[in-house]
Amino acid sequence: MTDALSIARDLIRCPSVTPADAGALGVLEKALNAAGFTCHRVTFSEPGTADVDNLYARIGTAGPHITFAGHTDVVPPGDESAWSVGAFSGEVKDGVLHGRGAVDMKGGIACSVAAVLAHLAANGGKPRSDGKGSISFLITGDEEDVSVNGTVKLLKWAAERGEKFDHCVLGEPSNVETLGDTIKVGRRGSQSGTLVVDGVQGHVAYPHRASNPVPDISRLIVAISDEPLDHGSAQFQASNLEFTSVDVGNKAFNVIPGEARARFNIRYNDNHTQASLRELVEARLAKACGNRIKARIVWEPSNSNVFVTKPGPFTDLAVSAIEEVTGRKPELSTSGGTSDARFIASYCPVIEFGLVGQTMHQVDERVPVKDLEKLTKVYRGILARYFG
Amino acid sequence: MTDALSIARDLIRCPSVTPADAGALGVLEKALNAAGFTCHRVTFSEPGTADVDNLYARIGTAGPHITFAGHTDVVPPGDESAWSVGAFSGEVKDGVLHGRGAVDMKGGIACSVAAVLAHLAANGGKPRSDGKGSISFLITGDEEDVSVNGTVKLLKWAAERGEKFDHCVLGEPSNVETLGDTIKVGRRGSQSGTLVVDGVQGHVAYPHRASNPVPDISRLIVAISDEPLDHGSAQFQASNLEFTSVDVGNKAFNVIPGEARARFNIRYNDNHTQASLRELVEARLAKACGNRIKARIVWEPSNSNVFVTKPGPFTDLAVSAIEEVTGRKPELSTSGGTSDARFIASYCPVIEFGLVGQTMHQVDERVPVKDLEKLTKVYRGILARYFG
Repeated sequence: MTDALSIARDLIRCPSVTPADAGALGVLEKALNAAGFTCHRVTFSEPGTADVDNLYARIGTAGPHITFAGHTDVVPPGDESAWSVGAFSGEVKDGVLHGRGAVDMKGGIACSVAAVLAHLAANGGKPRSDGKGSISFLITGDEEDVSVNGTVKLLKWAAERGEKFDHCVLGEPSNVETLGDTIKVGRRGSQSGTLVVDGVQGHVAYPHRASNPVPDISRLIVAISDEPLDHGSAQFQASNLEFTSVDVGNKAFNVIPGEARARFNIRYNDNHTQASLRELVEARLAKACGNRIKARIVWEPSNSNVFVTKPGPFTDLAVSAIEEVTGRKPELSTSGGTSDARFIASYCPVIEFGLVGQTMHQVDERVPVKDLEKLTKVYRGILARYFG
Repeated sequence: MTDALSIARDLIRCPSVTPADAGALGVLEKALNAAGFTCHRVTFSEPGTADVDNLYARIGTAGPHITFAGHTDVVPPGDESAWSVGAFSGEVKDGVLHGRGAVDMKGGIACSVAAVLAHLAANGGKPRSDGKGSISFLITGDEEDVSVNGTVKLLKWAAERGEKFDHCVLGEPSNVETLGDTIKVGRRGSQSGTLVVDGVQGHVAYPHRASNPVPDISRLIVAISDEPLDHGSAQFQASNLEFTSVDVGNKAFNVIPGEARARFNIRYNDNHTQASLRELVEARLAKACGNRIKARIVWEPSNSNVFVTKPGPFTDLAVSAIEEVTGRKPELSTSGGTSDARFIASYCPVIEFGLVGQTMHQVDERVPVKDLEKLTKVYRGILARYFG
């Protein structure tokens, strides 16, 4: 059975809580093999983490090459007794498919596989009737947890094999309330750091012999957070810096401490690169310190760069396919947290469009069967336009 | 032998590191008994601390009543191999008496006992030749450590017996560089507290759904510490507030925390009482919070109220006695940390005058024998003027 509901049920019935695969990739491999795909199962390892299985499958050898990305691993079901049906039963009740991963994102993967199989069947088993074009699947089992043996390494592995992607659709649950309301076309970058202020320790009764870092770090926190980093861009809301902790750890009321530290995180838009952002914050710090305060920033390593797929032919055809099926004109959004799209964006333009996210990670995660059918039609519409 | 050097040596040879007495109070009791004092050894207890011995000795039954206060306990010697002589040997080298407690404050006690005995001997064994007047000693063995079974309880015990003190001399090492440079006539009060700011926890990517207490507490710290509490008074330097710690303890860079805390200590002068000071800081906080920031102060209990013995006949006679012996006009100072004088001040005016503090708490704590002789003369001069 190669309709979306059947594939989704088969996937949900594999309890593939990260890092377990539990047969999930095999479900896809079997269906794709049968349709003529060349499949590669690739296992990645890293000291201190569990080995994780990944799947890369491609049909066609020429461009244009569109790839569907996704993950078959799911978050744990939590208290299974709180579920209306078994978390891994894949039961349909009143036209709604229940189960962990229904929307995040076994349902989305099932729709993309069903759409591709239908598209191929309608085109003589080829992506494009002229024999050109390629379609592939980049599927990982390591997205919900540490994400070290998943998409990052699979992309690198593929690049080393000479694989080139022209465009990517990631089937994460991008819609907020109704299927068709949102395409995610980018994400803000994330950069963390620690502000360290050096003072001079001393007795509280003799403050002139000490230099108290507590009011100094307070001044710096205010100076650095008060002024906006920017006022947003065409695709993004304003960048934002939040101090998430400030710590001295001095238990003695009669001692002025010698050091204070404050931790912060920045979510930044395409007005900045990681390097320009760090320069901006360092310059703001230097100004606030003047000649008096001794402070420095220790930056955390970050692999969450800002990215955006700008409006153009690729987003236009997705919008058109969505409008045709749902009657809605989706917002091109860059809000929310991170996903594997941040890694894919280094290789090719990527958009995220999948199911509705409302029940993801919750008890009774579920999706109306009608949404599975509609999303399959949207993906078919994207393929038809892409290869049309 | 009732000269100051002999008494000081006998005291130093008792290794009375708090809470041990090691015979120290007995040295004084013996000398005072022989001179006609009525002596009381009083032991105080408190759950969780060691029992500590105290000594109250009085001669005379009528006023005026001057009391000499002090402590026979000492801080530990530290690395004894670093000392030039045994820390408890009481050795005199080149005219200098060495040993733990030489200046803080076995030396000071020895001078007061020697001065009182000489004064009595010159007045027919009575404080005043007309038979009026009283002299007493309030000596504790619990000043250097937790100070719970010492002067506080001894004063309460004496008050319950009906003892009334008119004036007190506390023989702590008050002089900074040379004998005669400083009388301590008061101390600032000390009051600690914790500022607590309530925020609303949330994800750092959605700051509009959270309320970050970190920049808010930073603003409050700056607002509360920037404006001086006062500009000093006749006897005191300006009051001062220092934030000694600020803590959130949030390890997650992607979470805006729900609470932030900052600890502070205030050293305050006689422009304030404990109650008026708290009101002042609370009012400043309320103004800085406005209607937006939710914050409160948790005050620590404090028994360190501000006190001052204002210039008048009692300080005048001490200054006169010091000038006569040392040729120096001492400063009436209120600087520095706390001592048992803060407790005595609730019962009678108190001044602190003793030896030079430079070597206190150090290896090779020591005092020139000449200083012991001079301080004894100063105390005799005070007694002569007091009962003259």
